[in-house]
Amino acid sequence: MEQMRQITLNIPPTTKPRVVIVGAGFGGLNAAKNLPDDKFQVVLFDKHNYHTFQPLLYQVASAALQPDAIAGPLRNLFHNTKDFHFRMLRVLSVDPLTNTINTSAGSLQYDYLILSSGAKTNYFGNENMQRFALPLKTIPDALNMRSHLMQIFEWASLNANPALKEHMLNIVLVGAGPTGVEMAGAFSELRRYVLPKDYPVLDFSKMKIYLLEGMDRVLPPMHPKSSARAQRYLEKMGVIIKLNAMVQDYDGETITLKNGEQIKSFFVVWSAGVMGEVLPGIPKEWTERGRILTDPFCRAIGSSNIFAIGDIALMKLEDYPRGHPGVAQPAIQMGKYVAKNLFALHRNETVKPFKYFDKGSLATVGRGKAVADLPGDIHLGGRLAWLIWLFVHVNFLVSFRNKLLVLANWAWNLFTFDKGNRLIIRPYIRKGDEKSKTVFAENQVGS
Amino acid sequence: MEQMRQITLNIPPTTKPRVVIVGAGFGGLNAAKNLPDDKFQVVLFDKHNYHTFQPLLYQVASAALQPDAIAGPLRNLFHNTKDFHFRMLRVLSVDPLTNTINTSAGSLQYDYLILSSGAKTNYFGNENMQRFALPLKTIPDALNMRSHLMQIFEWASLNANPALKEHMLNIVLVGAGPTGVEMAGAFSELRRYVLPKDYPVLDFSKMKIYLLEGMDRVLPPMHPKSSARAQRYLEKMGVIIKLNAMVQDYDGETITLKNGEQIKSFFVVWSAGVMGEVLPGIPKEWTERGRILTDPFCRAIGSSNIFAIGDIALMKLEDYPRGHPGVAQPAIQMGKYVAKNLFALHRNETVKPFKYFDKGSLATVGRGKAVADLPGDIHLGGRLAWLIWLFVHVNFLVSFRNKLLVLANWAWNLFTFDKGNRLIIRPYIRKGDEKSKTVFAENQVGS
Repeated sequence: MEQMRQITLNIPPTTKPRVVIVGAGFGGLNAAKNLPDDKFQVVLFDKHNYHTFQPLLYQVASAALQPDAIAGPLRNLFHNTKDFHFRMLRVLSVDPLTNTINTSAGSLQYDYLILSSGAKTNYFGNENMQRFALPLKTIPDALNMRSHLMQIFEWASLNANPALKEHMLNIVLVGAGPTGVEMAGAFSELRRYVLPKDYPVLDFSKMKIYLLEGMDRVLPPMHPKSSARAQRYLEKMGVIIKLNAMVQDYDGETITLKNGEQIKSFFVVWSAGVMGEVLPGIPKEWTERGRILTDPFCRAIGSSNIFAIGDIALMKLEDYPRGHPGVAQPAIQMGKYVAKNLFALHRNETVKPFKYFDKGSLATVGRGKAVADLPGDIHLGGRLAWLIWLFVHVNFLVSFRNKLLVLANWAWNLFTFDKGNRLIIRPYIRKGDEKSKTVFAENQVGS
Repeated sequence: MEQMRQITLNIPPTTKPRVVIVGAGFGGLNAAKNLPDDKFQVVLFDKHNYHTFQPLLYQVASAALQPDAIAGPLRNLFHNTKDFHFRMLRVLSVDPLTNTINTSAGSLQYDYLILSSGAKTNYFGNENMQRFALPLKTIPDALNMRSHLMQIFEWASLNANPALKEHMLNIVLVGAGPTGVEMAGAFSELRRYVLPKDYPVLDFSKMKIYLLEGMDRVLPPMHPKSSARAQRYLEKMGVIIKLNAMVQDYDGETITLKNGEQIKSFFVVWSAGVMGEVLPGIPKEWTERGRILTDPFCRAIGSSNIFAIGDIALMKLEDYPRGHPGVAQPAIQMGKYVAKNLFALHRNETVKPFKYFDKGSLATVGRGKAVADLPGDIHLGGRLAWLIWLFVHVNFLVSFRNKLLVLANWAWNLFTFDKGNRLIIRPYIRKGDEKSKTVFAENQVGS
């Protein structure tokens, strides 16, 4: 057996410059799609075989969409390109001196390297948070969250203790960025339209949805007008918003704030921060707080052929002294920019520096309720903002197939006020969660 | 914590007769839907919160359908019934003397008990088969199978050893009943239309699909004409059929037949047998080979108020000396029958014995290729049989929502020759599979 194993990357030799891309998020995907394969050999690495449309992950988590609707099989996207090579594997390290990237399936020389590995959840060192709270960065995360939520309601149906039953229904969302706000809205709609019909034995008027934010307003990256509007929508929908609220601890059942306040909940979502994870081998001087410092050409400072785009990149400009916002648009635009300029750079031709075109920010709170900051200091709310949100998101989904599925799901949800994907098909997983094990283990079903 | 836990079934007391149904498959679901809740209190137990449309599981496994399309959330189905109570839990045992059913959430008295827990995979004591082969009874099974298949292709792309690479692509399906035949067809279409585009580095002309059957023809329960026709279709599609082939062993890499022949494969599906699993507490005299013997009224012999329907039931009639076929129709008809007759039985009124109306059998092999045995000794093939199959399956899907999703998926597949659900979103699981761990573990990604 052992001698039969000959793991290899199996990338054909080439006379063209070879571009290796690490990560198939918005940045990597757009770089890969826009690099002409007659000029370059393009190699894409990712640990999944699909691209995740992250802005809609919360809809999978809240049972409005099925996972397949927001995932694009990567190999599908490159059926018509010849010198393109996707490999599903783990990238281990890079050696900038020898232009070598090392992976779980072997090493490869590159001419150009594009790092677009994105960001991961940042718990700011809070180990209990990491153990007990639910992250939302991947499709398995979203499926786990959906299953965990539904499982809690099933368990609550089987619990006779009024106190426990009441706080079993509570939801706590930490972080009122777009993800937190959109989840708060989605769960609030579930509570209003769906859950009372599903669980007649539970009293959902007792279910509390908390949205905690460390800053002094929701949607801190957006305009204060939009923040105020979103807050009004959420409060109307019965979401309890706590601003300037810092989380101190969570033991799987009780979350404690820095001011001493305690909230009981078995369902705590952590979307309060992300961090980059720099590939081993990248010199420390090139990085700052887990992100790779780049020049205005998306090139890692100190390197001539390594690029960083999207959340992993930190391009400090006058307009963006702390880098570009960690959303899809900068990643998409950087991906396209790098692809477009690589050929010129390769021939030592002059290229223009990257310029971010801010198309604005959107966040949806619920049916017919959204907020939009548009270029020209325009700040919209209500149905109009929601229609813009709908149009933009359907339009951005990577493949036609997904658009159809999303539309079918949403049309159904709109007409019926239902969310149809309330299946518990993942095992109940909160790693190391001994406490909830003792509460629930005897009734461990549904996986 | 401990004292806070008061697990209870939480079923309201009632003056109406209480019917407890164990299992929400075709039998249990149809019984539950047809029991009037003004005459009975209906309690339904299942370990999942959804009904699985088992005849289409192979389509999830072969990436043609997403799991949500063939699963109906159970609570959804009973929004408009008042004295209906679904509980997600494990049923532990029954005490026929005291009319008590014991579950992971407590015990409950019943007036009538309907056992419809279905069948589980039968490995006939072959422990290695159980360890290494993939079953297909549940949606998690189907998702695991789909992920495992796609993961094998990703791994094969990273393997340089020609011998290993070649046999890594092989698929072995054990059992040529409808599931085996339908999977063989589905995988053969994947091999022809989809995989070569996804994996240009792999040579799919070397990929072999084996269909092994212990009897002397495929689709043994169907008419010999249909068996011959299905075999012809499959062979034309390049499926290697081995009849009278008994499996002896499988070590995770090599499957050995009783005649000594060996086939190498990392992907072996076991659909060669099912068995019932009788609930502890049911007297042994009431059972035969894991099934509950019933009288012609679906009543467990020896009991006046316990019924068994579907795969778990064994009603020996002159026409069906070994019981009814283990497919959806007998379960559905028994479920409706029991529901209809329970009120009469309760009032000691005369009821007619159960009579199975054989609507015929269908199996699809691929695009425009199916076989159908219809009442009146009619045996169809080709496009007509396939249209019947399509109509019947869409029509039987439990909820409107699912019908829409299935249609959207199938329309896409038909027009594009694509199967769009090739995502690896489940961890790679073959329990206790040490050998493939050593082959693949270094590259464990995609989960």
